[in-house]
Amino acid sequence: MVVFSNDLDKVMAAFIIATGMAALGTKVSMFFTFWGLSVLRKDPAPQTIKDVISAMFGAMLPRGATKLALSKMHMLGLGTRMMKQVMARKRVSTLPELMQQARSLGVRFVACDMAMDVMGLQREELLDEVDEVAGVGTFAAMAQASGTTLFI
Amino acid sequence: MVVFSNDLDKVMAAFIIATGMAALGTKVSMFFTFWGLSVLRKDPAPQTIKDVISAMFGAMLPRGATKLALSKMHMLGLGTRMMKQVMARKRVSTLPELMQQARSLGVRFVACDMAMDVMGLQREELLDEVDEVAGVGTFAAMAQASGTTLFI
Amino acid sequence: MVVFSNDLDKVMAAFIIATGMAALGTKVSMFFTFWGLSVLRKDPAPQTIKDVISAMFGAMLPRGATKLALSKMHMLGLGTRMMKQVMARKRVSTLPELMQQARSLGVRFVACDMAMDVMGLQREELLDEVDEVAGVGTFAAMAQASGTTLFI
Repeated sequence: MVVFSNDLDKVMAAFIIATGMAALGTKVSMFFTFWGLSVLRKDPAPQTIKDVISAMFGAMLPRGATKLALSKMHMLGLGTRMMKQVMARKRVSTLPELMQQARSLGVRFVACDMAMDVMGLQREELLDEVDEVAGVGTFAAMAQASGTTLFI
Repeated sequence: MVVFSNDLDKVMAAFIIATGMAALGTKVSMFFTFWGLSVLRKDPAPQTIKDVISAMFGAMLPRGATKLALSKMHMLGLGTRMMKQVMARKRVSTLPELMQQARSLGVRFVACDMAMDVMGLQREELLDEVDEVAGVGTFAAMAQASGTTLFI
Repeated sequence: MVVFSNDLDKVMAAFIIATGMAALGTKVSMFFTFWGLSVLRKDPAPQTIKDVISAMFGAMLPRGATKLALSKMHMLGLGTRMMKQVMARKRVSTLPELMQQARSLGVRFVACDMAMDVMGLQREELLDEVDEVAGVGTFAAMAQASGTTLFI
């Protein structure tokens, strides 16, 4: 599974599918690239030395799973906040809870090295739960060996 | 196939692929979740008793296949209307026609129960053509058994 | 692989995955449809005779791989230009370079005939590198025979 997006709704769908498949005994790997790397950022961020562009990316991209916004009806944060409240009342797991469930079901988190380089993200800025930093070659090999591959 | 989006262009692509594959004899199931549930809404909606939030979602989300908008060049409805006219002139099936073709080719429509709960949608608000209301476990089992899985 | 989008970031991801898989010896076909057709447009466009609507589409859609915009942080072109500069400094291949790599690794480019018809695009407006103009039936057959299918 490629997680390309950092929209809250799409990332939640990715984790719901990942945990659902892992619960059936399927081995699941999630490859986070481009905007999707935001999901794996630590909050607060550790101190790092960065060039100007990397610092700008760091400031503009959401810092971790609790900071993501809906792809539609975000409405300057109001829609996203409302959606989170509704989900809490309906007892839908939050994104951090889903990530925890995915981890405990053995879902692997892989961060794309090329996207980290472009965004100026360093390994220590990403969650300790990340299993591997790897390139597209690793992803291609995973996809080849995999029954189902999704791009989200 | 997961239909997550409610953009007219993406949903049409989903149905064109679904009917194309079904025409080759492949068994196709479409799992509608989140924004994608809009596609399955009846228009006009039947009378239902709803809390305020569910009523708000109901009012803000498009009511069925004829109300969807393009993901790009919507231009306050102008672009979407123009695109529909062009498609009609080029004899491309409309979305309701594609849905009908999919049905007659045996494509299964599955609605995601968790998303229905979050959006406050009740079974009777969805088309009678919906075969099943099911959860991610059902989807995961379908994906496991399936040769091709798309997330649209 | 279906390339539906014409966002620079998504199209680059599509080509990075395509070249990554082709480098492992996998046969890869990319089916360009709807907005994705923009990627294959020649720039400058050859002279063609068009009706008004087709000319409007032609003017509004990006003309080829060098004209695409980011799906997020485009910021009237500033974000896209900055991203391209960062990628150049990090020695990430540009989209035209990725397309060239894909070609030399034997990746097939297929253009969707229905989308070309709707957008009013003629064969000679698309790159000579396009191997085939085909319909959804061809795509469905490719997907059936394929291990991995992505919708991007």
